[in-house]
Amino acid sequence: MKNVYFDNAATTQMRDEVITSITEVMRKNYGNASSSHSFGRSSKSLIEQSRKTIAQYLNVSAGEIVFTAGGTEADNLVLRSAVRDLGVNHVITSKIEHHAVLHTIEQLEKEYGILVSYVNITAHGDVDYKHLETLIQTENKTLVSLMHINNEIGNILDIKRVANLCKANDALFHTDAVQSIGHYKMDLQELQIDFLAASAHKFHGPKGVGFTFIRKNSGLKPLIFGGEQERGLRAGTESVHNIIGMEVALKSAYANMNSEADSIKALKHYFIYKVVKDIPKVTFNGQSGDLEKSTYTLVNICLPVPPKKAAMLLFQLDLKGIACSKGSACQSGSSQNSHVLTEILSDTDLQKPSIRFSFSVYNTKEEVDYVIDVLKAFIE
Amino acid sequence: MKNVYFDNAATTQMRDEVITSITEVMRKNYGNASSSHSFGRSSKSLIEQSRKTIAQYLNVSAGEIVFTAGGTEADNLVLRSAVRDLGVNHVITSKIEHHAVLHTIEQLEKEYGILVSYVNITAHGDVDYKHLETLIQTENKTLVSLMHINNEIGNILDIKRVANLCKANDALFHTDAVQSIGHYKMDLQELQIDFLAASAHKFHGPKGVGFTFIRKNSGLKPLIFGGEQERGLRAGTESVHNIIGMEVALKSAYANMNSEADSIKALKHYFIYKVVKDIPKVTFNGQSGDLEKSTYTLVNICLPVPPKKAAMLLFQLDLKGIACSKGSACQSGSSQNSHVLTEILSDTDLQKPSIRFSFSVYNTKEEVDYVIDVLKAFIE
Ligand SMILES: Cc1ncc(COP(=O)(O)O)c(C=O)c1O
Ligand SMILES: Cc1ncc(COP(=O)(O)O)c(C=O)c1O
Repeated sequence: MKNVYFDNAATTQMRDEVITSITEVMRKNYGNASSSHSFGRSSKSLIEQSRKTIAQYLNVSAGEIVFTAGGTEADNLVLRSAVRDLGVNHVITSKIEHHAVLHTIEQLEKEYGILVSYVNITAHGDVDYKHLETLIQTENKTLVSLMHINNEIGNILDIKRVANLCKANDALFHTDAVQSIGHYKMDLQELQIDFLAASAHKFHGPKGVGFTFIRKNSGLKPLIFGGEQERGLRAGTESVHNIIGMEVALKSAYANMNSEADSIKALKHYFIYKVVKDIPKVTFNGQSGDLEKSTYTLVNICLPVPPKKAAMLLFQLDLKGIACSKGSACQSGSSQNSHVLTEILSDTDLQKPSIRFSFSVYNTKEEVDYVIDVLKAFIE
Repeated sequence: MKNVYFDNAATTQMRDEVITSITEVMRKNYGNASSSHSFGRSSKSLIEQSRKTIAQYLNVSAGEIVFTAGGTEADNLVLRSAVRDLGVNHVITSKIEHHAVLHTIEQLEKEYGILVSYVNITAHGDVDYKHLETLIQTENKTLVSLMHINNEIGNILDIKRVANLCKANDALFHTDAVQSIGHYKMDLQELQIDFLAASAHKFHGPKGVGFTFIRKNSGLKPLIFGGEQERGLRAGTESVHNIIGMEVALKSAYANMNSEADSIKALKHYFIYKVVKDIPKVTFNGQSGDLEKSTYTLVNICLPVPPKKAAMLLFQLDLKGIACSKGSACQSGSSQNSHVLTEILSDTDLQKPSIRFSFSVYNTKEEVDYVIDVLKAFIE
């Protein structure tokens, strides 16, 4: 049986050099980075080097990077502290954000009674920028939280436009960039965003580590209290091996970004070409069928399959060794409909099965051929 | 130069089998445990197996174990949710807890205006149980948070007594067991505690992973919101490799606990014998000089060194390749006095240097000899 891993937006395979470096750190650098002796100092210098590397890629200063246990924690850290410590009483977000943002905001709404506004989303899954402009005209202390790249439909936010709008209206801006960091370059001197969340396992790094960009003098306070790690912004003994793994993964991503992006984009292009040819009635969710308006890493298709047969589709793909996802990464195990597709699809389309295929540099054209053949056979 | 690692209460070297298993998982099991396809299911089954293993050792059910990014997060999870979601408005703790507990409680005091009572601590660093009995007589909804083994002075709490006291007075009981899990066995059917925090890197597992025991139907809610991982109690893609590493480390710890405890205890005994012989004026902080009343893993000594020379001591030990700690793990880099020793030592003793030496199965008698020789030479 084949094994085709087309679920790279859920998580990615670790690069060899990432695994090697993590293993080496586990063997050699077991000091606690908070200890003042040589064992501790060597761990400390490793993680400070990682911080510098990551900061350089984003064109920020090292002190603005805070390591976390992943993208979810990073989102929680920013959102909670913005409300609790920065006086934010109004959050503007959208209904198609990741649950790490949505559920956190719902919780803050309950706890603090903040006002939450949801910006309209077009049928193609784009933010309605005019509506955003209206929502942001307010006397409230406002934080805008909008993701850079949507993890289900791949739509790319006009992040510069949003950043400028926030600046012009004295609103804070947080972006969940979990699906873009490692795939797209960002210059955070140019882009005046305040906070950003990233996660290593989405760019061939280890699971359970990520980082937050927190602009200097933001006044943010910790989510997790205790020791003085991360300049007092995130307590807990640092996961040295995971942090180094993240650094190595990001280094490889940046070193190969153009060529890898080109080849993954070509693969996506090929997928689109094949699926349209072999399954004429297929449609693309969000902007994911448009190579310019969506990320090159994923496509989300709605298949012409009657509801009765639909339930069998994912099961059938799994049987054929094909890993893909319906809904978001965290939802692929659940039987609920995707909250993102629910926002943008018609009731008729919601009856049909939608599947996200997400690619990496480890995928091949032959895999695309195989998957399309399986889909075609299923539908016929 | 020698390299002597006597800072095992700060963090430990990973066992070979831990490193091997982590590396293997990183290579083979890259699926997201929330994905429903085969890659996801294999990750899921690995972490559910780990959960079962850990639950069995503690004699609880698997659903009562929640994985976190370490001991600090585990403490934060319990304390914050107890106040926010369980209606706790009174916390009893002590001034010699770890900062993961102390600073979190201080923060909760600020945020929620809860009442915080600090139980008296004897000059030997023990909890004044009579005082605890008084404090717990209250109409308030009370949580007691007391650590099982103190990370600086090694005192062991009479945890059964505290658990029974809490039960009898309708108080919740959380224990930070970061220094005991993996070193001491605990049966949580017998011990009626409600919550417990543990951290893998203290028992030769990876850094950045730990777990919380949360007794069934406790009503606890997440610290980190988002996906439905950990039965809705802790969102974020699971760090599969780290969790498996923690399981393997705990397995090894349990398999060898008696023999390893014996040999580490013998080493501590030898250390005490030698230091008393060679440095007659040495004193032991807390109960750490008593082999029965303190953990076998550490000793904390106060050295007869004048204040002027004291500042040089850690530096000198480091130069000689000896890793040890003044104050707690998270404090060893800081120049502040230990908050634990500040509570229990006289002003005169606080002027003298105190050092914690903490041992593991990787240490030897020869290392003890070497360290005592270095100490002796320094003092003379
Ligand atoms: C008693 C105690 N509690 C909590 C912690 C924090 O655990 P972690 O380093 O996994 O966050 C430590 C060690 O740093 C500790 O010794
Ligand atoms: C857009 C987005 N945000 C946040 C997350 C959560 O990141 P993590 O899994 O590292 O907690 C994910 C992936 O799960 C994601 O795709």
